[in-house]
This record gives sequence, C-alpha cells and structure tokens, in this order.
Amino acid sequence: MKKKMITISREFGSGGRTIGRILADQLGFAFYDKEIIEKLVEKTGYDKKFVEEQAEYAPGKNVFSYAFVGRTIDGMSLNDYLWRAQRETILELAAKENCVIVGRCADFVLKDRDDVLNVFIHANKEFRAKRIVEQYGESTDKPMKRLEDKDKKRAVNYKYYTDQTWGMCRNYHLSLDSSEIGIEGCVRMIRDLVE
Amino acid sequence: MKKKMITISREFGSGGRTIGRILADQLGFAFYDKEIIEKLVEKTGYDKKFVEEQAEYAPGKNVFSYAFVGRTIDGMSLNDYLWRAQRETILELAAKENCVIVGRCADFVLKDRDDVLNVFIHANKEFRAKRIVEQYGESTDKPMKRLEDKDKKRAVNYKYYTDQTWGMCRNYHLSLDSSEIGIEGCVRMIRDLVE
Repeated sequence: MKKKMITISREFGSGGRTIGRILADQLGFAFYDKEIIEKLVEKTGYDKKFVEEQAEYAPGKNVFSYAFVGRTIDGMSLNDYLWRAQRETILELAAKENCVIVGRCADFVLKDRDDVLNVFIHANKEFRAKRIVEQYGESTDKPMKRLEDKDKKRAVNYKYYTDQTWGMCRNYHLSLDSSEIGIEGCVRMIRDLVE
Repeated sequence: MKKKMITISREFGSGGRTIGRILADQLGFAFYDKEIIEKLVEKTGYDKKFVEEQAEYAPGKNVFSYAFVGRTIDGMSLNDYLWRAQRETILELAAKENCVIVGRCADFVLKDRDDVLNVFIHANKEFRAKRIVEQYGESTDKPMKRLEDKDKKRAVNYKYYTDQTWGMCRNYHLSLDSSEIGIEGCVRMIRDLVE
C-alpha cells in the first residue's frame, strides 16, 4: 500500500523532527509539528501557551495545575478535551493531504489506516545531549537531565492516551538509531520505503 | 564503523531467522542460531535436549525443574552457568569471524563492540500466526497462543539476563516490521546498512 503519511515519534534530541522536515521537503508532503498547536488554538479558542503546555503532556505531571484547569460543560477534563481536539485535527489533516506528522501520538491516532508509515527515531544519550545544546542552547539543567525529563513526559503522555509503551518496536513499522545511521541515512531509508 | 556482525532478535514467526540466513548467505557471513547449542553441548558436556530447554529461557518458567537442576561446584545455578558458557561462546564466535547471530541476547552480550549491528524483527500477529503454521506445522495449541507463549518466554529470558525490556527500540540500531516491509525488503534494508 502506497504511503500517504509518515508519523515520526522520537526521543528528545534524536533529530526526529529534522528528519521529518527533510522528508516532507523531499517527498512534497506537508509537515506538521508545532503547526498542530496553531490549529488547536483555532479550533478550541484557548490561549496558545496553555495549549502548548497541556497538549503534549498527560495530566498527572502536575496534579495541582490539573486540578485547577477545570472541566468542559459536558464534564470532560480540559486535557481530555484537548486530546480529542488534537485527535480530530490529525484525522482532518490526514484526510486532506499527504503529510509528515511529528509526535502527538499520531501513530496511535492513525493506526487503523494502512497508508501510514509509523517511524520511531532514537539515539544514544551522548549524541542527543550534544544535539540539544546545539539546537536549543544551554539551560540551567544539565543536558542529561533535560533528556530524561522530556523522554519521561513523552512516555507518560503516550501511555496515558494510548495504553501502550512508548518506544516499543511493535508500535512502529520502522525504528532507527540516528546516532548510528546518521540523520541523512535515516531520511534515505524512510524515503526508500515510502517510494 | 564497518559492521562485522549482525545480531537479530525477533518475535516468534516474524521471519527473523530467515532474514538472518539470507543475509549471511548474501554477505558471506557465518550464520549462528541453533549451531550455538551444539557449541554449548561441546563446551559443557551436558545433554543436548537439556541445553536446548535451558539455554533460551530464564529460570522461573518452571520453578520445580529449576529447583531440581542443581548447582555447579562453585555454587552457580546451572542456568547461570549455561548463560555464562553461551556468553563466552558468542564472544568467541565474534572474535573469530564475521557472522549473523539469531537470538540468545547476542545484542546485549556484544553491546560494547561498535562493529555490531543490532536488529529487531517483528510483525503483526496475523502474519506471524500464518507463518508458524506454514513453517512448523499445526499443534494442539492455537497459533495465537503459541505466539504469546513464546514471546513471553523470550521477554522474560531477556529481562532476566540483561535487565532490559525485550523489544524496546533503543536496544537495537534498527527495528523492522516484516509484515509491512516483507522478508526481502528487510534483508535489503539491513544489507544496505552493512554495506
């Protein structure tokens, strides 16, 4: 089955987003990462910063902030409401055009379609630590701690919404170690599969 | 770094062994799967059937059989003794020649070498159920149960000896869904990486 969409899940700093962007360029696919946030803001009317903070991470990361965000009129928590809106957005994008979607449990949202290629990108910690400092600059936290915190949040979010374990081979058609294969090598392997 | 060895871990019925054998033929590498059992029998002097039963599965699968297998003179359980002998065998093979090794936690045993490519092959259950009946014939257990039992044993064994989770992307340079990519497709992708 010819693939019309690629979802890319990735460890923080592994270059997954970069790989997705290059693939989208080379294949002439649309590219969605933070663009989904814009669409969610449009759809829900919520503040962008709030959506950014809530959309990628599961409730529970901060019990107090969760308690205070309240519920929608029909009793759904705002997190669950945002998840539903995000899910709808992904399905709308998928129906509209060929695209690459980074993160946001898109592999799970689109699991019933057979024209989607699900990819996981990971890398060893040294490669990732170096890369996040190059890409995002220094921070008060050490790079290793930043990696661990971000990966943990992604894993918890994925578990909460999909009931699957983040980073298990069986959830993806293809997983690649970008520190071994290189960013360009990963792009080439995924493109070969899609073409 | 040019790869001199490929380890293939695999879900039961995914075609991982077949992929390994074709790769070994095409690359001119030695191929080790059950051949390691022969070497273990030679090394330890134990009965082949006993080694076959014990070597791939962790203690705990059957508490009683474990209790009765006894201990070596230096107090090591026979399972641990066999694990150590298997580990030594894999390291000896790796030192001797270019090879493909299927299963036996070889990815973990060889993790400190940078000339090893670690691969995980998995597939959806329908593909695997069909394949095990074609390859190994019918049995009194239903194919789905056979898959689940065997995968569970492999996961427990891997966890026991490596303290890692079996089938996590980060333990492998490359993981491939053979039901999506096909046996030949998997061979081609791995070969391209090695060459």
